[in-house]
Amino acid sequence: MARWQPGATQRLVVAAVDLFTEQGYDATTVAQIAERAGVTKSTFFRHFSDKRELLVAGQETLSRLLAEGIGEAPAGASPLEAVAAGLERASGEMGPANRELGPRLKAAVAASTELQERDALKSVGLAAAMTEALVARGVADPLAHLAAELGVLAFKRGYARWSENPVDDTGLAPHALAALAELRDATTSLG
Amino acid sequence: MARWQPGATQRLVVAAVDLFTEQGYDATTVAQIAERAGVTKSTFFRHFSDKRELLVAGQETLSRLLAEGIGEAPAGASPLEAVAAGLERASGEMGPANRELGPRLKAAVAASTELQERDALKSVGLAAAMTEALVARGVADPLAHLAAELGVLAFKRGYARWSENPVDDTGLAPHALAALAELRDATTSLG
Repeated sequence: MARWQPGATQRLVVAAVDLFTEQGYDATTVAQIAERAGVTKSTFFRHFSDKRELLVAGQETLSRLLAEGIGEAPAGASPLEAVAAGLERASGEMGPANRELGPRLKAAVAASTELQERDALKSVGLAAAMTEALVARGVADPLAHLAAELGVLAFKRGYARWSENPVDDTGLAPHALAALAELRDATTSLG
Repeated sequence: MARWQPGATQRLVVAAVDLFTEQGYDATTVAQIAERAGVTKSTFFRHFSDKRELLVAGQETLSRLLAEGIGEAPAGASPLEAVAAGLERASGEMGPANRELGPRLKAAVAASTELQERDALKSVGLAAAMTEALVARGVADPLAHLAAELGVLAFKRGYARWSENPVDDTGLAPHALAALAELRDATTSLG
């Protein structure tokens, strides 16, 4: 049995997304993912409960980072300023590997209702984490919920632009913050 | 074999939600749902591809009604006025049976990750239908997406309040429109 080594999570995610893209989600087994990543099945199961959970490898970390950034924003920050701080904090942890995965993840999700469902629930989880962090700052409902939803939309839109641009050498943060600013500006045209 | 009769869909949904609440989602079979509803399994499969699809019995209809209401709003309507027209149109089709199902559906969803995922994807589908209807009116992105997300939030918040109040004899529409107005007001405090 191979010894556990740092980076197994990342290798498993890359292997899985490659296989989902090559042969489809349904046809891909845990054994194939483990083999491609160069680890045993038992190593796979130390990292993920099943292949679907690969989609949300970073969800818990992402929720924590968004919430920490919101919690640590200055006391006088507006709800959207706090959300922006959360986006900056989370974006800082997203590197080239995250960017390169984007288009392949998108293709895998587009081809599978099961992955679409898991992906949708991931967004709900991120919004809940951000709402909770805003409420902890004293932001009332439904303002906290609304600001959190804008944060999730901005993160997804910013990530899509960043990951779809292979020559982009900036980080995720400028894209996420630009998307948040666009959404804020759009609120003035709702009527 | 029982003859097909109008209302089988509604009876199957009620039977399923009762069983999910009594014994859990995982333990409930299609055969049990069909028996409780007084129909055969083949009748079940004429209405739903599997038990999970019961959760979204009305999703396609709801998407269509929301989009129709948006499309038929007056030419000068603002994005949120068009969304309000969509909410009114869809709310008009929701009767006492929909209201009474609410709390039981909520309990069933809360107890099942699988149902939470399907429920999350339902919201994504409703937002996509509303976004498309707004874009068809000439509303630009990201304003269309933002207005649609507010519409989904308003529908869910309004439905929760309506269905959790057993003595409420108004329809869903006033609750959904009040929730939309609250969200619109909250946009001015985002900062």
